[in-house]
Amino acid sequence: MALKSELETMLHGARQAARVLARSRGKEKNAALRLLAGALRDARDEILAANQGDYARALARGRSAAFLDRLKLDRARVEAMALSVEQVASLPDPVGEIIAGWRRPNGLEITQIRIPIGVIAVIYESRPNVTIDAACLGIKAGNAVVLRGGSDALETNRVLARLTARSLAAGGLPATAAAFVDNADRAAIQVLKQRADMIDLIIPRGGAELKRALEGATVPILPHFDGVCHVYVDRAADLEMAQEVCVNAKCSRPAVCNAIENLLVHNAVAADFLGPLGEQLSARGVEIRGCERARRIIPQAIAATEQDWNAEYLDLILAIKVVDSLDEAIAFIARHGSGLADAIITGDLAAAGRFAEEVDSAAVYINASTRFTDGFEFGFGAETGISTNRLHARGPMGLRELTTYKYVVRGEGQVRI
Amino acid sequence: MALKSELETMLHGARQAARVLARSRGKEKNAALRLLAGALRDARDEILAANQGDYARALARGRSAAFLDRLKLDRARVEAMALSVEQVASLPDPVGEIIAGWRRPNGLEITQIRIPIGVIAVIYESRPNVTIDAACLGIKAGNAVVLRGGSDALETNRVLARLTARSLAAGGLPATAAAFVDNADRAAIQVLKQRADMIDLIIPRGGAELKRALEGATVPILPHFDGVCHVYVDRAADLEMAQEVCVNAKCSRPAVCNAIENLLVHNAVAADFLGPLGEQLSARGVEIRGCERARRIIPQAIAATEQDWNAEYLDLILAIKVVDSLDEAIAFIARHGSGLADAIITGDLAAAGRFAEEVDSAAVYINASTRFTDGFEFGFGAETGISTNRLHARGPMGLRELTTYKYVVRGEGQVRI
Repeated sequence: MALKSELETMLHGARQAARVLARSRGKEKNAALRLLAGALRDARDEILAANQGDYARALARGRSAAFLDRLKLDRARVEAMALSVEQVASLPDPVGEIIAGWRRPNGLEITQIRIPIGVIAVIYESRPNVTIDAACLGIKAGNAVVLRGGSDALETNRVLARLTARSLAAGGLPATAAAFVDNADRAAIQVLKQRADMIDLIIPRGGAELKRALEGATVPILPHFDGVCHVYVDRAADLEMAQEVCVNAKCSRPAVCNAIENLLVHNAVAADFLGPLGEQLSARGVEIRGCERARRIIPQAIAATEQDWNAEYLDLILAIKVVDSLDEAIAFIARHGSGLADAIITGDLAAAGRFAEEVDSAAVYINASTRFTDGFEFGFGAETGISTNRLHARGPMGLRELTTYKYVVRGEGQVRI
Repeated sequence: MALKSELETMLHGARQAARVLARSRGKEKNAALRLLAGALRDARDEILAANQGDYARALARGRSAAFLDRLKLDRARVEAMALSVEQVASLPDPVGEIIAGWRRPNGLEITQIRIPIGVIAVIYESRPNVTIDAACLGIKAGNAVVLRGGSDALETNRVLARLTARSLAAGGLPATAAAFVDNADRAAIQVLKQRADMIDLIIPRGGAELKRALEGATVPILPHFDGVCHVYVDRAADLEMAQEVCVNAKCSRPAVCNAIENLLVHNAVAADFLGPLGEQLSARGVEIRGCERARRIIPQAIAATEQDWNAEYLDLILAIKVVDSLDEAIAFIARHGSGLADAIITGDLAAAGRFAEEVDSAAVYINASTRFTDGFEFGFGAETGISTNRLHARGPMGLRELTTYKYVVRGEGQVRI
């Protein structure tokens, strides 16, 4: 009951703040963001002390090394947060952009204008930097944000949220524009997901558990959940290029959604390609799970099961399958891929064209690594997530994807006949 | 059980068809649409016979005159359907449009390409022309459609759906791309709304009952439900223009969502404006419900209750309130409006600017009638609905709003450092 009424107050504050933010100018928003950057630097010791507490508790709970690394802050990471806030402040304001405009034969002037979405709730894992990122990007795009971070980062997030609210107020914007759910309970998600009257969009960042927790939501959700990405090495591939791309797509950061989980290789080049690749991958500590034909070429590969083709390992594991045609590769990706990012390596124009058209993923690569699926790499100057949705936004999201539009129609008394 | 397995077969057919449609060229889609136009003309007598049966049954059920008028087809209306199909065929293909494209510093070429959404279910009232419209527009945009029309038009729709499927097949496209739910039972909606795996989007056209039936849906919904629209006559309004716009926005077609339900008038012009307007409206059979101040000027007005300010009459009824300021008008619209279409009549630049910025509706009008909120009037060449959503599409929808996009990234072996 206390939680519900707390959330109620918070949501009302966010809704009111959203109306103010929608009308605030870029100058005001940027000033508040720059104040936040300064506040982060000034409060560095307080932030680090809170984070040490979180870290010690997470360690005692037996969290994995990767988890602890994402949770941990140090001086350099606090400075990186402050710099990223300043970078967001320096981006152009997406709000007010005239997306399109035209005049109708009857003289009406129609303009389509970019405006904020309203109140956006971001639900994320125990990564304190996401608290600052989500707040900044949401506010820059003129939205109020409701932040619900992972419980292991609660103390750190509490400090970061307080600094954000204070900086907003100091900059003349409503402090409630960045509302922080100061509660580690999953019950908060159950409340939030039903408040379509108060929240316009939920952006979840997390795994299968969060996906389940959000089932039955009435608030629209812009998910970025699974990333089962593929590289397909075509028979006409430059094998040296293919090897570089495969190693990059698997090894450069295996725990992220745009790393590949499955490699498909055309039968005609499998023998030449997979031998050296297998050695390279093994040398980098990658566990290989292969189909029968792949295993004949890579002796250290263990047998892949049907489950392997659908698995998002997020780890140094790669499933490899030899296929007999481009068609088989495309069908395999349609069946097992998550529609996030898939690449073909080929010198064959027709194969590249068919792959680009027929693979139904947010980002389709021809002769490049799937790892570029990222707002910064796409040149958006920011990243607000990678949508696996087909509606509203698909693939890497920047500031624009946190906005909607309205039409303003100017006339001289026109009526419809 | 039979219903479920029937729907299952239908959805699988639609999903497969969507893959074919996504790759079909404009020429093929247009050819199939032109065959449909011909088929409608050839089968006119069969269509009219089926419609006469539907009409007789609806009449016996005691349906309203307006309902019966929407249901009824005649020779001219069948010809209008055929013409509208031909018009859709003549529109440019939205699929394949390069929305944006740029080169990154590392040489990667990124293009954002318009593609179909996939499978779209349209749930609509007993208007047979919507069967043809929804099928044509969905297919033109490269989607498979699942059509579920109102039960009173079942016989007519059955004929129209059969003609559509046959025309698709005759044009070399999968007949299952236009799937018709041949079932008057609400149970079908309950099945469809949960099949997020098979349906990418539901577009509902209907009232409060349909809204309730769709509660708990897991399939994304692009609603166009309520339309509580306003005209605000500012103190600086040209009163002659204001009168023309008000009469048009209320009387030209009161049963549609972009007609106004509430009129707000600034106190300074209320006496001059409302007297003549009241007479005009009454002469046109409009029932006026007014606030106390409005009733002092319009003697025939009955007292408006709090409920009236939120009501979507869809009828010749208008609620009128006198306000003391632009601020009060904007706050009233925020509280009672549905965010669809609202207009200000004013000669004051600052008032026009504030209204355009602060009224958070899909379409905001300055000195023009809200009745222009329509895909054709906006110049889209088609109308696929008027979204009251903030995400994906807002306001009048054309063919583009039935599409999404993918990124195609071309490189020469780039890897992420």
